[in-house]
Amino acid sequence: MDTLITYLVPLAGVLGLLYTLIKSSWVSKQDTGTKKMAEISEHIQRGAMAFLKAEYKVLSIFVLSVAILLGVTANAQTSHWLVSVSFIIGAFCSGLAGFIGMRVATKANVRTTNAAREGLGKGLNIAFAGGSVMGLGVVGLGVLGLGSLFLIFGDMFGTGTAADVNKVLAVVTGFSFGASSIALFARVGGGIYTKAADVGADLVGKVEAGIPEDHPLNPATIADNVGDNVGDVAGMGADLFESYVGSIIGTMVLGAAFMANPEWADNFNGLSAVLLPLVLAGTGIVTSIIGTFFVRVKEGGNPQTALNIGEFVSAIIMLIASYLLIQWMLPASWAHTTIFGDELTITSMGVFWATIFGLAAGLLIGLITEHYTGTGTGPVKSIVRQSSTGAATNIIAGVGVGMISTAIPIVIIAIAMIASYEFAGLYGIAIAAVGMLSNTGIQLAVDAYGPISDNAGGIAEMSELPSEVRDRTDKLDAVGNTTAAIGKGFAIGSAALTALALFAAFITSYNATHATNLSGINITQPTVMAALFIGAMLPFLFSALSMNAVGRAAMSMIEEVRRQFNDIPELRAGLDAMGRNEGEKLENWSEEDQEIFETATGKAEYEKCVEISTTASLREMIAPGVLAVAVPVAFGFIGGPEMLGGLLAGVTASGVLMALFQSNAGGAWDNAKKMIEEGFEHEGEMLEKGSEAHKASVVGDTVGDPFKDTSGPSLNILIKLMSVVALVIATMI
Amino acid sequence: MDTLITYLVPLAGVLGLLYTLIKSSWVSKQDTGTKKMAEISEHIQRGAMAFLKAEYKVLSIFVLSVAILLGVTANAQTSHWLVSVSFIIGAFCSGLAGFIGMRVATKANVRTTNAAREGLGKGLNIAFAGGSVMGLGVVGLGVLGLGSLFLIFGDMFGTGTAADVNKVLAVVTGFSFGASSIALFARVGGGIYTKAADVGADLVGKVEAGIPEDHPLNPATIADNVGDNVGDVAGMGADLFESYVGSIIGTMVLGAAFMANPEWADNFNGLSAVLLPLVLAGTGIVTSIIGTFFVRVKEGGNPQTALNIGEFVSAIIMLIASYLLIQWMLPASWAHTTIFGDELTITSMGVFWATIFGLAAGLLIGLITEHYTGTGTGPVKSIVRQSSTGAATNIIAGVGVGMISTAIPIVIIAIAMIASYEFAGLYGIAIAAVGMLSNTGIQLAVDAYGPISDNAGGIAEMSELPSEVRDRTDKLDAVGNTTAAIGKGFAIGSAALTALALFAAFITSYNATHATNLSGINITQPTVMAALFIGAMLPFLFSALSMNAVGRAAMSMIEEVRRQFNDIPELRAGLDAMGRNEGEKLENWSEEDQEIFETATGKAEYEKCVEISTTASLREMIAPGVLAVAVPVAFGFIGGPEMLGGLLAGVTASGVLMALFQSNAGGAWDNAKKMIEEGFEHEGEMLEKGSEAHKASVVGDTVGDPFKDTSGPSLNILIKLMSVVALVIATMI
Repeated sequence: MDTLITYLVPLAGVLGLLYTLIKSSWVSKQDTGTKKMAEISEHIQRGAMAFLKAEYKVLSIFVLSVAILLGVTANAQTSHWLVSVSFIIGAFCSGLAGFIGMRVATKANVRTTNAAREGLGKGLNIAFAGGSVMGLGVVGLGVLGLGSLFLIFGDMFGTGTAADVNKVLAVVTGFSFGASSIALFARVGGGIYTKAADVGADLVGKVEAGIPEDHPLNPATIADNVGDNVGDVAGMGADLFESYVGSIIGTMVLGAAFMANPEWADNFNGLSAVLLPLVLAGTGIVTSIIGTFFVRVKEGGNPQTALNIGEFVSAIIMLIASYLLIQWMLPASWAHTTIFGDELTITSMGVFWATIFGLAAGLLIGLITEHYTGTGTGPVKSIVRQSSTGAATNIIAGVGVGMISTAIPIVIIAIAMIASYEFAGLYGIAIAAVGMLSNTGIQLAVDAYGPISDNAGGIAEMSELPSEVRDRTDKLDAVGNTTAAIGKGFAIGSAALTALALFAAFITSYNATHATNLSGINITQPTVMAALFIGAMLPFLFSALSMNAVGRAAMSMIEEVRRQFNDIPELRAGLDAMGRNEGEKLENWSEEDQEIFETATGKAEYEKCVEISTTASLREMIAPGVLAVAVPVAFGFIGGPEMLGGLLAGVTASGVLMALFQSNAGGAWDNAKKMIEEGFEHEGEMLEKGSEAHKASVVGDTVGDPFKDTSGPSLNILIKLMSVVALVIATMI
Repeated sequence: MDTLITYLVPLAGVLGLLYTLIKSSWVSKQDTGTKKMAEISEHIQRGAMAFLKAEYKVLSIFVLSVAILLGVTANAQTSHWLVSVSFIIGAFCSGLAGFIGMRVATKANVRTTNAAREGLGKGLNIAFAGGSVMGLGVVGLGVLGLGSLFLIFGDMFGTGTAADVNKVLAVVTGFSFGASSIALFARVGGGIYTKAADVGADLVGKVEAGIPEDHPLNPATIADNVGDNVGDVAGMGADLFESYVGSIIGTMVLGAAFMANPEWADNFNGLSAVLLPLVLAGTGIVTSIIGTFFVRVKEGGNPQTALNIGEFVSAIIMLIASYLLIQWMLPASWAHTTIFGDELTITSMGVFWATIFGLAAGLLIGLITEHYTGTGTGPVKSIVRQSSTGAATNIIAGVGVGMISTAIPIVIIAIAMIASYEFAGLYGIAIAAVGMLSNTGIQLAVDAYGPISDNAGGIAEMSELPSEVRDRTDKLDAVGNTTAAIGKGFAIGSAALTALALFAAFITSYNATHATNLSGINITQPTVMAALFIGAMLPFLFSALSMNAVGRAAMSMIEEVRRQFNDIPELRAGLDAMGRNEGEKLENWSEEDQEIFETATGKAEYEKCVEISTTASLREMIAPGVLAVAVPVAFGFIGGPEMLGGLLAGVTASGVLMALFQSNAGGAWDNAKKMIEEGFEHEGEMLEKGSEAHKASVVGDTVGDPFKDTSGPSLNILIKLMSVVALVIATMI
């Protein structure tokens, strides 16, 4: 049975990639609309690809250096040099996932705009197809990569004994390490890029020059749209790729621990506990594909319902499949496990329940997130009300909402952790994370659908299409929001559980390869407590670094836009013409002004702004990225495994909290602004666009941008990356 | 020897109180100046006392309930009901310390103003005398209380064996619990009071009605000045009282562990390790008093130098005294200790080094704090620069500075922790905290001097004294700032070390009274990790609660001020007269307007605003206070000692970080505003009062207010209170 499975798993990955290929070529075949639309879309595409190219050039140096380091140190120790090969492949797959996602997203955006000229349904189909390419690409590459590496190295080292499997997994772990490090750079770099462009475009364009968002006269407008792709598509893809891979590999390592347990051998044989996460992931690919067929909307239908049905169908099938697979692969009543002195009887039903706890936790955290950040909810309304007394009270209210929003999710994570442990030991915690992520394919499809429709709106604006097109793309964009909130809940919940699973895997792997076992990590030891303090500090340092980076990069952007407004006479003249005809529609301008405006359009040197965002974000991503890898290595080799464990505990707890705080505060500020823009009555006074309250809410939204799009999401990766590094070096320290 | 010491310690406390009495009556004898000054000062004094009275009424209910609960549960268990008596005495002493400090501060403020009419030196003398009453009162009460309780209960239960001493200390711990819970309420309540009044006075007074700060026509102005006393004097006094007491009791409990160690008996006898912290504290009272004699300045001299010399002299004497006392009381080379499996040889020199590490850590953290928050430093300048692009960038920059400012202090704390452990075991960590706090007397004198001179300035403004008086009080106020930053460093550093000492004491005390010992607290246990997550979340929840409370209380204040402006015709007329004569000096107004203004002055119903701040802050302090006590109790009794340990580790790490982040961000925003008000050239443009950058910096400052004066400092107490609660219930769970 095991042999069959090891061959089937990579095939599931291939299936995912095949789907990607078909959908991607379908998207390419769609019409790009007017010449202007095609031109703008080409600008965005070129900018996005230029960024990826430059980024991958920098990253390949990093990847090669780390790979050499890994190969060299591995030779001298109990580890194997092949781990560096896995590392390179992991990094490559992560980069490829980002590339695939971004390539299709930059194609789908303009085609969505064009389809939206005809109707809502067609727009949805294209945007969702683009998203599903991203989704299935990520899970396909993940399962194919992990599955084939396990197959190849398993063949090489054998999988008969626990020691063999541990050796195989130690090498395969490199894949996860590669994926995580690329993810961190992609998230941080992408996050800095998108916010630098956004803030730069807003501050000089909207505020100083008085031109609307996405206006062709604004030199930073293309960079802004590129940023959406770089940050929200490529960054998010790499992020979920590493969560997905991390949770699977963590579970595999913990599963191998059962093989070393004599009672396991008495009850059951083979690799089933090791293979289960791979099988669940592979099945998830199939159920995700099935789900995508249910996402279709007729003209006049509700796009939200379409997305919900797709996710729901796929989740239900996955649930049933999980039950059957677990019952098939694992023995009904099975060994006592005595890891860390705890006596637990683990059963296949227990493992199934653990996946349910994971799913439930993810869903609940998503709903709570929606409660604290959604339009029209109590907390967001409180921010709206406090905007009426100015920016300061708006900020205080938002910080308060962000901080209080951490409470319930943390309690949920704590309960999920304890419950899945009680039902299936440490393996239960890991499998809960896998359960949460098994539907990543369709979940990510919905997530990526968001920025595609957002971009489609930008293109509609820049190509000066009729306003009903923009209205339709806005509707498409709005639909994704609730689903995206749930997705965020899954991202944070799974990050916490995955980090814990990797943490447990680190201890297990250390014990499997060392004569003196760690009986635990004791925080009454001052060295451990000191490491815990430093670990807890890292998310603060990391957030500060990325936030300051956004500030610096935005400043460069502002200077460039100002320079262009000064140095390009046509642009200057165009702005003057706009000033003369303020508020008037273009067709009512004097002929002369219309001509000046036409000449101005396209004179902005978009590519210079793109270049500035690119170089700035690449320069700024280095320090935080290196920090995240270097600190656990230093603690592991100098301080030893206990201090490394303390460090991980600190960084995980504080990282999850800071991620929740920053993402939710940012989301709440964003929607508070939106609520005011739609008009909100407070104590008889109307808070609306242009009011003092609106200005205050814009301040909150701008503060929230780097919170929710740069530093917040990077922390999810930080905590997993540091755990993976620990797992990789576990055999060497 | 031990008997002699146990009698001498309370005497040192009495000496401190005697000094307090003498200085306090000296301050009372000084002249209060004009009739108007006396009137205003009486308003402030009455408001402050009204708050204390109302607060103590609420707190006495809390104290009695907890005391009854403690007495009842103690009877049924291994604990003793007398712990509730200690608890009541501790609460009473803490309240008394706040009362003494506030009483003298509200007397010293107007007398400082009056003295400042003659010269700087006289002003300094009075303000510092007021501060030293507070400082010596706090340490005197602490040493007297702890010393006499140890004397009495030691007499009752005996101090011959480790078991006896443990019983004594378990009862004495109640004193620390009482002190901590009052401190938390005082800090939170005082913090809410002062910021509600401040924000309320600013937003309606300055912004809506356009009258300057501390203007007699503003009904909230008295409440604002009361708030400075309630928050910065009474709150801070209670805060340091509990740090002081907590670090001493934690060290005593850890010292008792040596008595149980057979090697200790071979090398040495008696209570010396238990008594050492008391002796150091008692000596600190004497050195603090000596230090105060060195704080004097001649006309034209530099007040900063005077304060520095006082602190420096007292620190040097303390250092020498510590060395001699430790060598005298402890054996030169002394037992191996094997607590938690660690083998350490502890020597008297090792213990001395630990106190040095504590002192050095406190000093370094203070300097770092100054670097991140002081006027003219790099980080603050970066906030100033980013204010030129608006409030949003000002906020982002401040948050960034606050977050990055956590890094070095945490590393310092970690190193101090490990180093003092290496030199003197867990006892070393505790004694490092004692070393840091041994000079609390004079340190607190300098801290309390700050709000007294601040208040003196307010009184000068309200009494319409010539501007050179205000200039002098401003100079006095500014002098205290650097010293206050160092004081903050000591507060945070000592809070971290004290919490750790109490944490270790909790384990030691649990093990001393239970058959099954805790061998440690293992974070690889999911229950422990879950508790750690929840612990780390509490500072976020706690900060959110207090921040929201400030928002709500400020709203009530705003409504009351608006009501008075509407309902009191004289006030309305006075404001109109001010509007007609905007920017003109009073003597140049028309006679009619001068008359209207005279009639208006004093018509504001100050006491209504005082009442609103009082009731709001008392109402709002309940939830966070109860939370802080209830959570560790629940975890201890339901989850057991390991989960309680995890909770404490989480709350300590995240609490120290959040306290650093919030205090430093708030401090940096405050000084960035001040730098702009003094004028700052940026890219050829002058940032100054009234500019857009100034408005942005005001937003930052307002956001920073609750950060640095409400939620930030409360967290210092939260972490210690929760550890003390754990220590108190250690024998019962």
